[in-house]
Order: sequence, then C-alpha cells, then structure tokens
Amino acid sequence: MRTVHDLPTPSLILDASALEANLERMAQALPGPRVRPHVKAHKCTAIARRQREAGHANFCCATIREMEVMAEAGLGDDLLLANEVLDATRLAALDARVTVAIDSDATLEAAVAGGVREVLIDVNVGLPRCGCRPEDAGALADRARKRGLEVRGVMGYEGHIVGIADREERERRCAESMELLARAHADTGGDVISAGGTGTYDCNELATEIQAGSYALMDTAYKELGHPFVQAIWLWVSVISVADGYAVADGGLKSLGMDHGNPTTEAGKVWFCSDEHLTFAPDPKLAVGDRIRVVPAHIDPTLAYHDRIYVVEGERVVDEWPIDMRGW
Amino acid sequence: MRTVHDLPTPSLILDASALEANLERMAQALPGPRVRPHVKAHKCTAIARRQREAGHANFCCATIREMEVMAEAGLGDDLLLANEVLDATRLAALDARVTVAIDSDATLEAAVAGGVREVLIDVNVGLPRCGCRPEDAGALADRARKRGLEVRGVMGYEGHIVGIADREERERRCAESMELLARAHADTGGDVISAGGTGTYDCNELATEIQAGSYALMDTAYKELGHPFVQAIWLWVSVISVADGYAVADGGLKSLGMDHGNPTTEAGKVWFCSDEHLTFAPDPKLAVGDRIRVVPAHIDPTLAYHDRIYVVEGERVVDEWPIDMRGW
Repeated sequence: MRTVHDLPTPSLILDASALEANLERMAQALPGPRVRPHVKAHKCTAIARRQREAGHANFCCATIREMEVMAEAGLGDDLLLANEVLDATRLAALDARVTVAIDSDATLEAAVAGGVREVLIDVNVGLPRCGCRPEDAGALADRARKRGLEVRGVMGYEGHIVGIADREERERRCAESMELLARAHADTGGDVISAGGTGTYDCNELATEIQAGSYALMDTAYKELGHPFVQAIWLWVSVISVADGYAVADGGLKSLGMDHGNPTTEAGKVWFCSDEHLTFAPDPKLAVGDRIRVVPAHIDPTLAYHDRIYVVEGERVVDEWPIDMRGW
Repeated sequence: MRTVHDLPTPSLILDASALEANLERMAQALPGPRVRPHVKAHKCTAIARRQREAGHANFCCATIREMEVMAEAGLGDDLLLANEVLDATRLAALDARVTVAIDSDATLEAAVAGGVREVLIDVNVGLPRCGCRPEDAGALADRARKRGLEVRGVMGYEGHIVGIADREERERRCAESMELLARAHADTGGDVISAGGTGTYDCNELATEIQAGSYALMDTAYKELGHPFVQAIWLWVSVISVADGYAVADGGLKSLGMDHGNPTTEAGKVWFCSDEHLTFAPDPKLAVGDRIRVVPAHIDPTLAYHDRIYVVEGERVVDEWPIDMRGW
C-alpha cells in the first residue's frame, strides 16, 4: 500500500473525499447544464470526467490546448472556449461541439476563417478584460449571423466582484452586472447566458449556466464567502533543514502560484519562498524528514506547474492523475 | 522563413545574440571553472551546452530532476546539487560526477544511504534558508569523512544581499558573509568554496567558483546593479481585445512568474494579470492582432511554466529549445 510518506516531494496531493463532496454540493445546488465547469481551474481530464459523472456535460476552457485535450478525452459534448482567439483553425478540427467567445470584428473573422460555427458574444459586465460594450453586443451578433455563424447567446464574467466577502454587497453588485448582460442578451438573442463563477454561483439569478471552476479544489481567496466547498488540494513537502527559529521545506516558487502571495501551512508561519524552498517559523517539534501540507495561495497557477496530482484517501495514495491540459 | 509573427502566443522568445553576449561577458570576467552556472535559472540543456562551450564545464542544480537531465544530456562532468535532499538514490545512479550539499546529520546520512560519494558542507552565511551554522561546519565535515564521504569543501549563498543596489554596501556585506564562509572552510578543508550569484559575481573575493544563473537570460531585479548583462528573454503575446483605455493580451499568471509582481511591457502600463490574460493601458495605436513583448518580473519561475523557448535573431526564428529540466 502506497502512502503519502512514499511520495516524492514536492508533489500535489488531492483529497478524494473532499473533491467528491465539492462536486456533490455543486451538482445539488446547480444540477446538469446549470453549471458549465471551467477546466482552467484544474487542467485535469480525470477531474473533468468526475464533473461529468456528477451531471455536468458541458465545459468551459480558457485555452485552445484545453479544448483539444478535452475533445481527445471524449469530453467534447459542448465545449466553450470562454476566451478570444485570433487563430481558430485548431478548434474547427476538433471532434467536439465547439463554441468560441467573440468580442470584436477581428475575433469574429478569426472564428469564420478558422471554420468555427458557433459563438457567444462576450460582453464586458464590469471587469476590465475581454468583452464588448453591452450596447455593441447586438450589432456584433448581427454581423456574426451575416457571416454565417450561429450566435448561441452571450457570456459576461463578473470577475471583479466574485471575491466580495459581504454577501449583500456581492448580490447587489452581481445583479448590477447581470443587468448589463441582460440588456446585451435582449439585443443578441440565443438560448445561452453564460456567466458567474464559484464566487457568485449562488447569487447570479440571470445566468442560464455558471462558469464555476474553483469549487472543485477550492482556493483560500474564496474561504471568506461562506460557501460549502472545502480545500481539496495541497502541496506536500519535506522539511530538509531546521535551524534556530526557522525551518526549510522543499517546495517554492516553481511549485506554487504566487500572485495571491505566500502560501500558508499549519506547520508554522511562512517567511518567504525561493525557487525550490519554503522558509517558515515552525512548530518546535518539526525535524528534518518530516512532511507537511502547504496551502497554495492560488490554486489555478499552482496546478499549471505540476504534471500530476496524487489522489489520497487519508494517508493512502489511491490514484495518480496527469494534469494533462497544460501549455497552449 | 519563420518569424516571430508565425509563433503561437503566449510563447517565450530568446534573443540569441543577447544570450551570446551575456555568456561571453561572464566567460571573460570569470573563465572556466570560476563560474559554476546554475541551471535552475533556465532549466534548458541547450543553454547549458552553450555555457559549456563558453568554457564552464561544471554546473549547479537545484533539483534531482535537473541533475538527471543534465547527466543524460552528457553535461555531467561535475554536477553539484546545491540543495539538501533526503533521498539521494536517484543521484548515485547518474552517469556523472555528483556532489551534493549537506547541512545536517540527516542529509549526511541520506547521501551515504543513497550512495553519493562527494559532498559540500552547506553553510548559512546570512540567508535564512539551508546551511549549518559556520561554527558547526567542521564537525559535520569530520562526521562525513568518518562515514566515508569525500568532503570537497563548503558552499554558502549570500542570497540576502545579491540585490543590494548600492555597490559599496553590496561589497561590504558580501565580504562579511564570506568571512563566515572562510571561517567554516578553515574547519572543513577541501578545495571548493562555492558561493555567490549574478548579483555578486564581481565582488565575491573568496569563492573559488560563483554559482551564477540569472546572468544568461537576466532578470529585471538585477537591472539596478550596473552589470553588463542584458535582458535576453520575453513573453510574446497577442493583443486579443481593445477597449476604451485598456487592452488585453493572451498571456497571464500561467505563463509568468509572479512573485516579484507584475510584468512590464513597452506597449503600455500593466494593470493586472489573470490566468491567461494581461490587462494594460496601451499605446493608443495598438490593435487586436498586434503582438507585444512582455518582460517577466522574475525569470526562473517563468521558464518553469513553459515547455520550450523560441530562439530568435531579430524577427527570425532560428531554433526551438525544450525547457527539459522541469519537474522534480
């Protein structure tokens, strides 16, 4: 029997029951097509397959590579590239139902040139990222239809408010964002209003489907929101050096997404990360050779550093899943 | 002829002549074994091979995986794992001369148990990371020799001062750190005093070899030091969306090391990064489809996200090198 103590370090460990609990809770709250799981959060077809078993057959991707690997894995029932691309030729070649977001004539023409047939009009609902102005959505949809594209509807991500801890304010501002999307949708038509994320999955009243990703593995940034999802993934590291007042473990900047700051650990207070090291003020009982769990500050860019996840039940390692959607 | 305009985005581009210039400058300043290039900075055997062609046959690694790939690539003349490990069995199997750092009895015993024969005593010279106390180095060396290990000398990285912009202060504090290392070395013996990095390559008077890595590709953090090395690597991204006051390019948190903060670009002021997006206030002439160069704030963890580098001469793509030392 392989246990976590046999694993190489650093490695990512995934608590199987925490993942199952998260998937169940979301599937109960928003069954079937009401969630379009965003695979960028995990980049792992083994997890996507479990999301489909939980009832969600339609998926969201952020990169062409994610679309390709999902299609190859037989998870291509309805794949949305929730992002703008300038070369769509690789998408049209996929054995999958492919929809791509467009927000300009350039991205519209890229879809046509690449041979993609279905699009969503991406609408800016307050986050300064992609998306046309709400008042421009209808005209863009008209031009898309004239060019032979099927416009399935709109998408608009209220990413600027998903982290607001106060529930009432989050609800109010989500509703404001969705007013913009509703106005755009009135002009574009189509069945789909794709929006939201883990932060607003339970307060977005407009979306026909929620693009939730983080709920499966969870992120410390969402802890404050009072959602029923639990942390399911950790970096597993070994203590390689202990000195007066601090200790050093063998995971650092190249195994942790750092844009949300330092990771945390129950084993002590984190001082700083180096490329392959974590220096922290430890529990005094820690010794060289001990292994500890580290919670990454941001899951998505953490997973993109690793080529596999070790799946555990308690201390037992029950599986090993490739993080197979990395790259572009 | 393939040019940068044909490349997929996001991708890393490496300016071949900037790399050559950096390698030449270092080889002139510290020829042959006076530099032990640290491959963690690039994780790319193609670059290591050029460093060897520039005269440096001995290399430094941060992970067992880096050691393995260097040995497989025939670059194993003298490989130092400048890091502590608890399981050295993979190291002893390598077709290479292998030396490993030890700073405790546990890591000493790991070297013995794994079959490694040569070690350096890793000494803390002020950076709270690995390394024993200077006054403990001699006794540890004695115990290592009693256990049958060859103690080649000491190593001690003055990483806490490599970024000090003021040259006089950097020199003074480097000398202080190296006093500690000299004292330890007096107690351990051995031919090797391995220390330093790009930040102190020209002021560390003690080290018999400098563990410089960043000089090859350079890092914005070292810009202030007045060194003769130039930026040689960029993230190459496409503008995929343009709105009033900002634009969005297709590279973000999963293609950039973020621990030193946001990247920079001559194309405008960076606002923020998302997983696959960079939002910035652009030069007003930028249009969807334009491509821009982005300077990562920290090179090492940036390269660890990518599986290849495109080598360019001007706009011409002349080669494509795998980043083949990723993982652990």
